[in-house]
Amino acid sequence: MLLDHAYFMKQALLEAEKAAADGEIPVGAVVVINNQIIARAHNQTERLNDVTAHAEMIAITSAANYLGGKYLRDCTLYVTLEPCVMCSGALFWSQLSGLVYGASDPKRGFQQATLSLHPKTQITAGVLAEPSRDLLDQFFKKLR
Amino acid sequence: MLLDHAYFMKQALLEAEKAAADGEIPVGAVVVINNQIIARAHNQTERLNDVTAHAEMIAITSAANYLGGKYLRDCTLYVTLEPCVMCSGALFWSQLSGLVYGASDPKRGFQQATLSLHPKTQITAGVLAEPSRDLLDQFFKKLR
Repeated sequence: MLLDHAYFMKQALLEAEKAAADGEIPVGAVVVINNQIIARAHNQTERLNDVTAHAEMIAITSAANYLGGKYLRDCTLYVTLEPCVMCSGALFWSQLSGLVYGASDPKRGFQQATLSLHPKTQITAGVLAEPSRDLLDQFFKKLR
Repeated sequence: MLLDHAYFMKQALLEAEKAAADGEIPVGAVVVINNQIIARAHNQTERLNDVTAHAEMIAITSAANYLGGKYLRDCTLYVTLEPCVMCSGALFWSQLSGLVYGASDPKRGFQQATLSLHPKTQITAGVLAEPSRDLLDQFFKKLR
């Protein structure tokens, strides 16, 4: 069975829920190659005391480690929120073949900053955007 | 004695030389707070098989670890080459107070991508630009 974008985004959402349970801004990501998940990660900036510990960054490092090479050329990264400038820069270097994200980030998203990814990277936006956004809204509502 | 930009950039250059000796693109960085170096790092993308392992990223993580907090508000990061999009995004999140870099990177530098850092971050460019650039040129000449 060929799994679809919604299937993998649900897996990324499960990661985002783990982040929320840990008091982290709820963003989750998975990396997929040949219909198989090779990395799962969620935002850990608080736990690790590290502004670079976004879900995407951890997922990129983890996938490269699994593959034994630094390029993610045949991989697709699924992430619940539009990547920020930092993460889009990392995705550019990774040369990944696909980026699929859920909710848009009008404030800090890379598309707002008019950045492009690697020319080889196909971008799909808005997959399960609503539950991704809901999770973030609930988190920030609780903080207030 | 108040140490100056050239002093700390020389320390970043020593890190860049370590990268060159390891067959890595020679970029080095140090993080300074109150006239004291709290983190030293060089590019390790090859050794770690990780596109995110730029000198600046490792230096940010290392400095935050030293400080026990994720923000580098009173820190200055010295790096031998203008940061890329990824690293500038990380520096934005870190809210550091100063960025000092050596050589410009007209191809991949964040200023080329018209990105800005955090409003609190003061940017100084061109400190020891020549030896920083020479090190990179020598490295790429050897590769050809």
